[in-house]
Amino acid sequence: MAYLEALKKEAAIRAVQLAQSGMHLGLGTGSTAKYAIEELGRKVAAGELRDLTCVATSEASDALARSLGLTVGPLTPQPFDLAIDGADEITPDVDLIKGLGGALVREKLVEVQARRLVIVADYTKLVTRLGEKAPLPIEVLRFGVQSTLERLRRLGAVGELRQAGSELYVTDNGNFIFDARFVGPQGQGADLAALERDLKGTLGVVETGLFLGLAERAFVAAPDGVQEVVRR
Amino acid sequence: MAYLEALKKEAAIRAVQLAQSGMHLGLGTGSTAKYAIEELGRKVAAGELRDLTCVATSEASDALARSLGLTVGPLTPQPFDLAIDGADEITPDVDLIKGLGGALVREKLVEVQARRLVIVADYTKLVTRLGEKAPLPIEVLRFGVQSTLERLRRLGAVGELRQAGSELYVTDNGNFIFDARFVGPQGQGADLAALERDLKGTLGVVETGLFLGLAERAFVAAPDGVQEVVRR
Repeated sequence: MAYLEALKKEAAIRAVQLAQSGMHLGLGTGSTAKYAIEELGRKVAAGELRDLTCVATSEASDALARSLGLTVGPLTPQPFDLAIDGADEITPDVDLIKGLGGALVREKLVEVQARRLVIVADYTKLVTRLGEKAPLPIEVLRFGVQSTLERLRRLGAVGELRQAGSELYVTDNGNFIFDARFVGPQGQGADLAALERDLKGTLGVVETGLFLGLAERAFVAAPDGVQEVVRR
Repeated sequence: MAYLEALKKEAAIRAVQLAQSGMHLGLGTGSTAKYAIEELGRKVAAGELRDLTCVATSEASDALARSLGLTVGPLTPQPFDLAIDGADEITPDVDLIKGLGGALVREKLVEVQARRLVIVADYTKLVTRLGEKAPLPIEVLRFGVQSTLERLRRLGAVGELRQAGSELYVTDNGNFIFDARFVGPQGQGADLAALERDLKGTLGVVETGLFLGLAERAFVAAPDGVQEVVRR
């Protein structure tokens, strides 16, 4: 595991090589994105990068970035030059499932504005098609949640509301997360863009963890080195 | 105004005549819906209705209903026999704009499950097409709200975040409300179902105040009596 951690860090360092002085950056959340924030902090402290402005996708990343001397502000409509984040599943087209960490909505709100979204992850996240290993997190309103889950079941989603110990997990936005697997046609990975539209269009759904066509490339840490996966 | 209040109450009484013992009811929110809750309470106290179970669309209606001895529970997937609520605009097809009271999401979550949604209102709410008088309330996430508004502007929406005094108004779900008017093709009331899909599909949008094809009829209080508008 220590070896894999070293590779995750190497993947993060590769992604941060894309950062340049003066850039507006989006900071991801999670164990691999953390290495990218640390590397950005190191480069700023060393004078290798200057005049960065950053927006963080979670309170944890915000606090880490500030502690390293990075300038972190609120999300505005200003596009990001570069956003670096992890993912829970990555296809060869760099389509993603995100949100196992619970920050999917903020990540999507930030990263949709990125001119370049670059993913950093370890090789266990590579899949042939989305949903192969990970459930799809869907953020849902708390009020009337059982009715919302009933509507999602009609779309072929089965699963459970995420727990946090003996309680239901609550997101930064005050909502629940339904960790969904799909049966029927959707289970075959048919038309994910249509699935995303149907899910987002469902009454009671706030957002899904599907990130389709958003990421430009991924740096993936594997035992034999860092692999670069570029959107075709 | 006292005369109009009397007519609003008469409209509410007409709607409550549709309630029968043993029904599962959805209780609306607002100045006209309040009369319906009071009438339900009166009928239960008088023994004219029995064994009602109710779900309220706001804390205020919940408290009022309980104070009148009505049985109020949480929203479950059980369909409602009847839901009675107000509206901010009503077309001849009983399509609606709702949400000026701020409870649009809970109202929609409840009322989509109603076998019969019956609207009670005064005649100033009648319009030829939606958006004629009222803005369309759109509930949006607080995080990154300026970016969400930028996306909404691209759909032709202009307007303001709702204020509550000197602060921004926050819904029961912890979100903001954007009171939108539409310019361009949408302003002509072209395809509201498509507009609803586009708005709901927008990243950062939780729900809209468009209620299309949901209501069965409206009892509308006017100076010359209560008018019944039935979906064609």
